[in-house]
Amino acid sequence: MSELELLDRIARTSVRRAGTVLGVGDDAAVLEGAPAIVVTTDLLVEDVHFRRAHCTLRDIGHKAVAVSLSDLAAMGAAPRALFVGLAAPAGALDTAGHDELRAGMDALAAAHGATIAGGDLTRGPALMLAVTAVGTLDDPSDAVTRAGAHPGDVLAVTGPLGGAVAGRALADDPDLAGRVPDAAALRAADSRPQPRVSAGRRLATAGAHAMLDCSDGLLLDADRLARASGVRVVVDLDAVPLAAGVAAVADALGREADLMAATGGEDFELIVALDEGGLARARAAGVGLHVVGSIEAGADGLRLRRHGRPVAPPRELGWAHDV
Amino acid sequence: MSELELLDRIARTSVRRAGTVLGVGDDAAVLEGAPAIVVTTDLLVEDVHFRRAHCTLRDIGHKAVAVSLSDLAAMGAAPRALFVGLAAPAGALDTAGHDELRAGMDALAAAHGATIAGGDLTRGPALMLAVTAVGTLDDPSDAVTRAGAHPGDVLAVTGPLGGAVAGRALADDPDLAGRVPDAAALRAADSRPQPRVSAGRRLATAGAHAMLDCSDGLLLDADRLARASGVRVVVDLDAVPLAAGVAAVADALGREADLMAATGGEDFELIVALDEGGLARARAAGVGLHVVGSIEAGADGLRLRRHGRPVAPPRELGWAHDV
Repeated sequence: MSELELLDRIARTSVRRAGTVLGVGDDAAVLEGAPAIVVTTDLLVEDVHFRRAHCTLRDIGHKAVAVSLSDLAAMGAAPRALFVGLAAPAGALDTAGHDELRAGMDALAAAHGATIAGGDLTRGPALMLAVTAVGTLDDPSDAVTRAGAHPGDVLAVTGPLGGAVAGRALADDPDLAGRVPDAAALRAADSRPQPRVSAGRRLATAGAHAMLDCSDGLLLDADRLARASGVRVVVDLDAVPLAAGVAAVADALGREADLMAATGGEDFELIVALDEGGLARARAAGVGLHVVGSIEAGADGLRLRRHGRPVAPPRELGWAHDV
Repeated sequence: MSELELLDRIARTSVRRAGTVLGVGDDAAVLEGAPAIVVTTDLLVEDVHFRRAHCTLRDIGHKAVAVSLSDLAAMGAAPRALFVGLAAPAGALDTAGHDELRAGMDALAAAHGATIAGGDLTRGPALMLAVTAVGTLDDPSDAVTRAGAHPGDVLAVTGPLGGAVAGRALADDPDLAGRVPDAAALRAADSRPQPRVSAGRRLATAGAHAMLDCSDGLLLDADRLARASGVRVVVDLDAVPLAAGVAAVADALGREADLMAATGGEDFELIVALDEGGLARARAAGVGLHVVGSIEAGADGLRLRRHGRPVAPPRELGWAHDV
């Protein structure tokens, strides 16, 4: 069974009890309260989500927090606190290593007004971080889910894509890293992604209809938004904004840059559906938005266009490994 | 560095920002809100916290939820929602296995009015569960921390101890399990611990001064309560209530039953300091309490007595592995 099939099954069979405004199946859950409570949890496992040879412990701490804050951002929530479960093999982390990991977590949490307020430590067969982020919304109905896109909306992203996948390719091939421009920025896009917390809150205020973060790739995540909203999403590959240097890396790898950027994942930009008024309000509030497609009637998920013509989606829409 | 040294270091160096009423160092953190938000996170790792040969997947799901609900219980909080991160090796869990794990989690969550409201799935080198429990308190000041014990208080536990450690011994030695009474109940104490959620809320209402759950052993956890409160805790080993069958298992293992029960951990009873009035109110509210010691002035942690005389504490007060 694939991860996607399993997640779908869990979402279909989950029981929602009183007080849960939004449960399994979105970027984060929303619980009733004043303010409403928004919670998300993510795992990062060594050799699945990161490799020690490719990043520092500070990078790993940063990324673990970034992934969870990005889920809060995608709901329009304000971060409050983070809880970190850490498993590590005996002797894998000395005191300096722990400090470095925590420094990466603390710095990013502080930058977004959140506290590392608790956690758990244990031995385990690999380095593994389980990060839960808790945020708040003044009203539960302020939550921007994946399910509110309307036909006529535009689909937009908050920044350029492809930096993380190109950065991973450079980590795998240091020789290539010496031959392309912007290599350092691409490596940073992979190892120190910046969650779009402020943009998420401003998009919620601007009246975004549906939102999620681009963690698994624009095409896969846009397909999720389409299916959750019961609409069709048409992505225009010509409009996908490429991070600087992505085209050169794609060229060196013999890949199409637009598809590499649209399926690579882990850029942690926000993908948002809004109407023209919302788009104008968000831009007036200082949110940079790149329109990459449109929402149409027809509950059939993702369609792609390039050079004005329909093209078949790639076999793999994004990052989705079996579990 | 031991886990205890590392936890102490984290607690001393953690930054607490506005809105965090209680941060690192207690059973759970408390965030401002109406109601106040109580959050705890725990990891359970295969071959560290459980062995597949000794328990079913339903047991593992149950126990993962029990550990986190017990932390909420120790704050006096009402459970609201649970978030589950699950890592598993490729092929380790088929659909039926996932369903069994979830059934164990769902049943215990439902029994305490909580919802499994979100989570994350990934591959990993071993089966591992990261469970975050979110609860609420009508007022942040209702939280019962580890730090409020006063000289003159009694120290009490909510039920008999030693069942879990005896149950683990039986799992390790099936031959022994055939020779002692109450073997099935002891195995259940280990594999299906019952968090004392209702008792925790009633103890908070009764005015408990300090509380934590008995996860790592009465002696180690009572020592933590003493140090957090700046008091001395005197535990009377003769008063430690033994679960049925523990004496027979200790006898077969050549161990002292009272010390085995007081250091074994994972019983998930609550350990509470309260004055005589609080004790009477809690008992009137239906909470069964066994008085096991007293709180004295003198900020020097744990003292032990047996047969009316001081005895030296054992070298290991409880469950505390190196990390």
